[in-house]
Amino acid sequence: MAMENLKTFLFSLCSAAAVGIVAVIFVLRWVLHYKEGLAWDGGLAEFNWHPVLMVTGFVFLQGMAIIVYRLPWTWTYSKVTMKFIHAGLHFVAFVLAVISTVAVFDFHNAAKIPNMYSLHSWLGLAILLLHCLQLVLGFGLFLLPVAPMAWRAAFMPLHVYTGHFVFTSVIAVTLMGITEKLIFGLRNPAYKDSPAEAVFVNVLGVLLVAFGALILWIATRASWKRPSDQLLHTLHTSGGGEDPKALSQLSEESAAGDVRRRSNKLEDQVH
Amino acid sequence: MAMENLKTFLFSLCSAAAVGIVAVIFVLRWVLHYKEGLAWDGGLAEFNWHPVLMVTGFVFLQGMAIIVYRLPWTWTYSKVTMKFIHAGLHFVAFVLAVISTVAVFDFHNAAKIPNMYSLHSWLGLAILLLHCLQLVLGFGLFLLPVAPMAWRAAFMPLHVYTGHFVFTSVIAVTLMGITEKLIFGLRNPAYKDSPAEAVFVNVLGVLLVAFGALILWIATRASWKRPSDQLLHTLHTSGGGEDPKALSQLSEESAAGDVRRRSNKLEDQVH
Repeated sequence: MAMENLKTFLFSLCSAAAVGIVAVIFVLRWVLHYKEGLAWDGGLAEFNWHPVLMVTGFVFLQGMAIIVYRLPWTWTYSKVTMKFIHAGLHFVAFVLAVISTVAVFDFHNAAKIPNMYSLHSWLGLAILLLHCLQLVLGFGLFLLPVAPMAWRAAFMPLHVYTGHFVFTSVIAVTLMGITEKLIFGLRNPAYKDSPAEAVFVNVLGVLLVAFGALILWIATRASWKRPSDQLLHTLHTSGGGEDPKALSQLSEESAAGDVRRRSNKLEDQVH
Repeated sequence: MAMENLKTFLFSLCSAAAVGIVAVIFVLRWVLHYKEGLAWDGGLAEFNWHPVLMVTGFVFLQGMAIIVYRLPWTWTYSKVTMKFIHAGLHFVAFVLAVISTVAVFDFHNAAKIPNMYSLHSWLGLAILLLHCLQLVLGFGLFLLPVAPMAWRAAFMPLHVYTGHFVFTSVIAVTLMGITEKLIFGLRNPAYKDSPAEAVFVNVLGVLLVAFGALILWIATRASWKRPSDQLLHTLHTSGGGEDPKALSQLSEESAAGDVRRRSNKLEDQVH
């Protein structure tokens, strides 16, 4: 990466990390300072795990998982190591999202509030299931050494697109959740009277949008990819549909390289 | 475009158009059947223009504007003609969004409800202003024959990214608006009791997400671009950061080609 390009990358990365960390601090301050704190008691303090774990796991960790291949200091690591870090971060994000979902079901059941009535809940559960499917398919296709190399090449653009779609949708669903909670949770003064909590949590929403925008900016700049992936990207995007044979050949070579590196790695670990 | 690729494109395009049109029908049925209908009276029937114009203009027309360069039967038209169609659709979308915003301010003022207190309103207004900026900059840089060709090349990736960001954000903000309206608008039975209107409008929300996903899928498949844009894309994505000189040279040639075509076109119109 040229120096000028590297500087822009590092600036974008630091901005994304800073905005993401501030968002996590904001959601913690929201539930600890303005709300009932955190507990696992079936009450409002259990509900509060829902925004905390969604922002920390499904937004922040998932965002980091998406851009982990872009970090230039990891380009000397084997691709399979990075795949494990990518999958691991997504897995932790998924587990936190599941716990977060259990918290809100528990709270609803204890308070006799119906489950799954809102657009927020419909889209949220759909995206959680899609993220799970993406995890399973991603693991089976790109980490287990069983999938034919042509399948990997064919599936990669869909994997990337679905990943960006899930991440974007998670932020959109979080914004809907913030809206619901501010309407239901604020009485005297109500949301429309703009108490301090309302303004504070609106700012959290703005931070989440900024975080999403920065992560997707980093993820979609092709010149910030791992050098080995840039060649593949060029063929994907310029050759797609016109010369699938050349594409799949290159992908086979690249994937075969992965397998070789993986077996080297395994030998390293055994020896 | 190869035949197989063309079929997939047409299937995606028809799906996007169908889902978008069904979403417009849904928002119309929502306000005409379940709500107070449409009027310009400062009351709820004026508010109802807000969702109708946002879904029709800012979501559907803006989505079409984004993919208008992808239609293979337009590839024989000059690029500048397509730019005018692209900019024209975005401009109509913007005008409808402004009228839609006026409707909700009118309604709030008449009903003594504060303006601009919600996250929906903050993000919505910010995105409307960003869309306006994008329109003005896009017009000045890519349609007026004044911007240096190197600027056009440098600005294009940001123009595309910002366009996708605005479109995605509009859908996210619309989902927040639906959430607000279902909570405030449904009493006895309330939103949580899942009356028919709640389920119907939740489905509208799902349709909007599906429409956004299809439009962004179409927009981000490089092999579905205008053939003249594919070469530029390849250099943008594979050369970016490594060889900016080659990129800017090619862009100058391409942009110069645009200018030549534009002057030809003008001559065609004059003669």
